[in-house]
Parts: sequence; C-alpha cells; structure tokens
Amino acid sequence: MSRAYNFCAGPAALPAEVLLQAQQELVDWRGKGLSVMEMSHRSDEFVSIATTAEKDFRDLLSVSDDYEVLFLQGGASAQFSMVPLNLLRGKKSSAYVNTGIWSQKAIAEAKKYCDVAVVSSAESTKFSEVPTQETWSSVSGAAYVHYTPNETIGGLEFDWVPEVDGVPLVADMSSCILSRPLDISQYGLIYAGAQKNIGPAGLTIVVVKKDLLGGALPLTPAMMDYKIAADNASMYNTPPTYAWYLSGLVFQWLKRLGGLDVIGEINRRKAEKLYNAIDNSEFYANPIKVGSRSRMNVPFTLRDDALNGVFLAEAERAGLLNLQGHRSVGGMRASIYNAMPEEGVDKLLEFMSDFERKHG
Amino acid sequence: MSRAYNFCAGPAALPAEVLLQAQQELVDWRGKGLSVMEMSHRSDEFVSIATTAEKDFRDLLSVSDDYEVLFLQGGASAQFSMVPLNLLRGKKSSAYVNTGIWSQKAIAEAKKYCDVAVVSSAESTKFSEVPTQETWSSVSGAAYVHYTPNETIGGLEFDWVPEVDGVPLVADMSSCILSRPLDISQYGLIYAGAQKNIGPAGLTIVVVKKDLLGGALPLTPAMMDYKIAADNASMYNTPPTYAWYLSGLVFQWLKRLGGLDVIGEINRRKAEKLYNAIDNSEFYANPIKVGSRSRMNVPFTLRDDALNGVFLAEAERAGLLNLQGHRSVGGMRASIYNAMPEEGVDKLLEFMSDFERKHG
Repeated sequence: MSRAYNFCAGPAALPAEVLLQAQQELVDWRGKGLSVMEMSHRSDEFVSIATTAEKDFRDLLSVSDDYEVLFLQGGASAQFSMVPLNLLRGKKSSAYVNTGIWSQKAIAEAKKYCDVAVVSSAESTKFSEVPTQETWSSVSGAAYVHYTPNETIGGLEFDWVPEVDGVPLVADMSSCILSRPLDISQYGLIYAGAQKNIGPAGLTIVVVKKDLLGGALPLTPAMMDYKIAADNASMYNTPPTYAWYLSGLVFQWLKRLGGLDVIGEINRRKAEKLYNAIDNSEFYANPIKVGSRSRMNVPFTLRDDALNGVFLAEAERAGLLNLQGHRSVGGMRASIYNAMPEEGVDKLLEFMSDFERKHG
Repeated sequence: MSRAYNFCAGPAALPAEVLLQAQQELVDWRGKGLSVMEMSHRSDEFVSIATTAEKDFRDLLSVSDDYEVLFLQGGASAQFSMVPLNLLRGKKSSAYVNTGIWSQKAIAEAKKYCDVAVVSSAESTKFSEVPTQETWSSVSGAAYVHYTPNETIGGLEFDWVPEVDGVPLVADMSSCILSRPLDISQYGLIYAGAQKNIGPAGLTIVVVKKDLLGGALPLTPAMMDYKIAADNASMYNTPPTYAWYLSGLVFQWLKRLGGLDVIGEINRRKAEKLYNAIDNSEFYANPIKVGSRSRMNVPFTLRDDALNGVFLAEAERAGLLNLQGHRSVGGMRASIYNAMPEEGVDKLLEFMSDFERKHG
C-alpha cells in the first residue's frame, strides 16, 4: 500500500517529509558515521540538535525568556502528578475544570497531593459544551487552575482562554499544542505529550514560567522536579534523544510551512469542512455544540451503529485508517492534527458521502 | 564517512542490521501505509510488535511467569525513586551497596523515602574493587537490597551475585543487561535503561517478581506504580512505541546470533583482548582490580594526560568515536556493549598500538 491517511488520535500521523528525512538520516546522520539514536546526549552534535529544536519551538510559540521549555518523559499522565508536586508551593488546594475524560484523570491524580476544587464542569451538558466563564466558581486561593483546552476523546475545545485573577493557569495541551497561535503569557504552565502535534510518543514538552519553579514537595522524585530538569537543560539523565530529534524536524517543517498562523488557518478550514459535511447530512452526527467543537478531534456517529464495522472496513480499504472512536465513547473519530493534509480530509469527505449514498 | 565504531557509554551503538531494518521500515511498516511511530499503541499491529518484543526478551533471559516485564519511561533515574516507592511495603529501611557514582545516585534518591543502610562500600579502595560478600554488614530487616552489578562510569563489575538471606535483591542492570546469561530467580527486581544494550534512549525495562507488587506508598504517582503498569500491560498511557519496536528488533538480532551464551562469550573475548593489551603496555593503564573489571565499560588512562586530546582526535579520524572518559573521572573509556562487533575492538587495539609507537 502507498502512504495511507491516518486519523489516529495518537500516536498520530507525522508529516511525510519529516519521515522521509528521518529515514534518509537514520543509519548515518550527515556523514558522521552513526545514527542520532547512537549519539551521546552530551555530544556537540546532539546538543546542537536539541538546542535548535528548543529554539524553533520557542520561535513558533513566541516563548519569552521568562519561561523554561523542558523536554521530559512520561506523557501527560506524568504531568498529572508533576503539576501538583511542583506547583502547590505551600498551598493546600488547587482548582480544576472538568470537561471530559482527560480532565478527570488529572483531577483524580491531583487529589493524592491536595484538596481539589472542581470550579467548573461540563457534566450537566453531557460534555457537549464548554461551560462559560460566568458559571465558574471562584478560583481565588488556589495554587493553580488546571484545564484541558482540547479533550481528545470527547472532541470538546475551548475557543477562549480562562481568566483566573492572577492564579497560575495550567493547561494540558497534548492534543492542541502548535495547532494555532497562542499567547503563552496567559499561562503559568502548559504541557503536551508529543504523540499528536509534536513528534513520536515518549517525549513530553513542558513550558513553565521560571518564577513558579523551586518549590516542589520534599518527596518529589528527582525525575519529577521541574527545577532539576530546568537546571540541567532537560538532561539530568539521558533524555529520549531520538524523539527530541524528530520533534525538531517537525518544528522545522512547521516553520517552513509558515508557522502557527498558517497551520492554524489550514486547521480551521479542515475542521470546518468536516463539521459542515456532518451538519448537512442526515446520516452523520456530531454531539458537540458549535463554539465548543474541537479543531483536532472530530467525533461523529452514523445513523445506525450497526454500520460502524462496515464503515471502518471500507474506510481502511480506501486508505483511511484509524477512524474508530475511543473505546469509552464508541462511534467514529477523525483526528486531524497538523500532519493531516487537507487532501486527507477531502478524501474522507468523499468517502463519507459515497458511504452515505450506498448505505443511507 | 562510512559507519564508524562508536564506543559511547550511552546512548550507545546499535547493531547495524537493526538500523538498516528500521530504516527500510520507517516510512511504511510492512505495507500498512504508515510508520510504527504513527500507530495507535492499541492497534493490532503495535500490540503484536509489543508482545513479540516482550516474549523475545523473556526467552533471552528465561524469565518465568512469576515475573512481570514492564516497558517504562524515565531511565534508571526514575527507578531510583520507583524502587523505594514500590518495594518498602510497610518497612522503614533498605540496604544499598556503594560501588560508584550510579550506586550513590540511587542511594541519594532512596533517602527521600526511607532509612538507607549502606551495607558495603568500595570507597576504601577508591572504587577499584568489588567488596567481597564476607565484608558486608547484615541486610536482615531491610525491605530490599540494591546494588549496581556494573558501574558504567567507574568500570567496576560484579562477577558474582550477592546472597541476601531471602531479602529481595534489586539490581540496576542498565549497562550489563543482556550481556551474558543471568539467573533471574535470584532477583526480586532488575531494571535497565534501554540506551546501552536494549535500544534507543527513552525506554526502561523492569523485571519484577509479581509477589512484590501492590504495596506502593500512597503518594506514589500513578506513572511510578509498578502495579498500575503491570495491570495495564505497560500501556496505562501511551508508551514510547518506537523505542519499544526498536528494542524488539534488537532482541530478534540477539536471538539470531544465538542468545546470551553466545553474546556472553563474544563479550568475554572482546573485554579480555582489551584488558590484555592495556596490561601488557607501559603506556596504557586500567585502575580496576582483576576480577572486578567490567566487560562492558573499560576505562583506561594514557601515560601522559597531555596526550588525551591528540588520542581522541586521531581516534576520531580513524573512525573510532566517543572514547573520552566520563567528565567526572577523565581519561578514556571504551564501552563495548553487545552491538560493538569484535572487529571494532580489533581496530581499537591496532590504533592504540600505533598510537603508543608514535607517542610512547
């Protein structure tokens, strides 16, 4: 088979030209006689790869020197512990917003370390709508406010940034980072597992305001202390070097493309096409209210669930992979991250339309 | 440059045929239209890759069903915290053996969670000799006994397994795992960062006896709880899929080679050649006592430290990379893990001999 369109929620598709470059360089990186995988993380070559990747990431998001950019391991799930372990700084409580499954996982883990006030929840709308800020409880006194700007499973996305009265704002951006411009100065900390919009699984990027560092709980494992990571330029121990390198290639690809304004516009267009097609059909449906819909993860159902298996099998034969919804919600889900080209969405729309004609 | 001989201590050289296979499969894995990096960790394809890798690893080390094999993140440094967090099980103290820098890092981290008794130390011999078991203090009452069978930096290796009176024995095997046969039943837990004898950095393998699981301290982060990892087949969250896949290719390579008896014999021969050359020279020296010498990491000094720079530069020109010793000890170090072919050691010996003739 030639290269398929892969709608997986994560690990997700990577840009084809990044994979081709990685393939070309895999055995012998630029005539050095070894693979990037085989380089000492302290070698000039790898340090140059690592610092270039950080610089490109900072350029893309306009991250100022007030922030550390950390290249860590453990995924968002490790951050669910690291955020309270590091950011409580003597306080006893934190504030969380519940917009779906990933928010709930973050909340459950934070409860090990502090009182958690759920200041807003989308539960009453069955997670079909981001609760407007006016409905939130007060966040004052909290060590930080945590929210999930994009819920990968539910397909719910904030199109606004919460106002939190000077309390540090923390965001799990695993499935929306680099998908459009953001103003980092509104955040105390953002984090993202790499395997959606950054690179391969096994790398996690954290951007944290420097003045929040240094107050980790005494029992914090060294590998979970942001300050130790920052003081060691993310090389307290051997980092996931190959994932770091590949992420750097992705950042360069994004810069060549024109940066976050350009990819943001492409992403807006891709999502709009797909939601329009769903809304204009009697056969497909999306449960999320307009204004709260994810640009990255588009869940949808068929009129008849009994057709799900046929839909997935025919899609796969058409080179459209991994459209099944998350096992906890069922139905379908098209994840259309940065690396999904617009042609991939067009192909999907064509397929959906054909399928509806045949089975509708 | 064609492929060089890379003596890096880690991330270390990988077998050339593994890299070539990875290169060939990188963009399109076996006609599926996507890279392994882009596969859902829950897809049939990746689950098959993952379970095959685990099975091959178990075969190589003859790991029985009494043990879990976990594929984790965070390197040995994360294990320095995870071992006490998980294995104290109500006890207040643990026993550690200090044979060098990595032992000391493990000890420092364990002190956050329990009383640490250093039951044996090589400090009095300046870490030039593994202390014989008769000189150890009693380990009775300890939750576990931790030691470092091979010290990557100092080049000190146990050629025997401690007897610990039924206390669970824990070993940091980062730089010696898979280098020769071992009897897993002598251990409660072994762990190893992948980037020496397993695969690329970013993966850590833990083998732990099932009856030791389930007693983690209440504040243990979910990502650091072995039981959670075991209950979820190392997929509580997205694992480092590409590193897992590559490790699987390394295990298959080792099996094709004939397994640990065969590689153990090759490693014995490689190390013997190198130590013999050093011992038979007035120009080179190794500080470690015979019987305590590492088969994996061979540190050596030149008669005149002022020649170090010339040695490294000429070696690099000869295609012999990364021979500098660790920054904390200086001198040279040749790491000769499984993937270093015997020809690489022969080339190094030839170079050392030429260098001695020219500069000795």
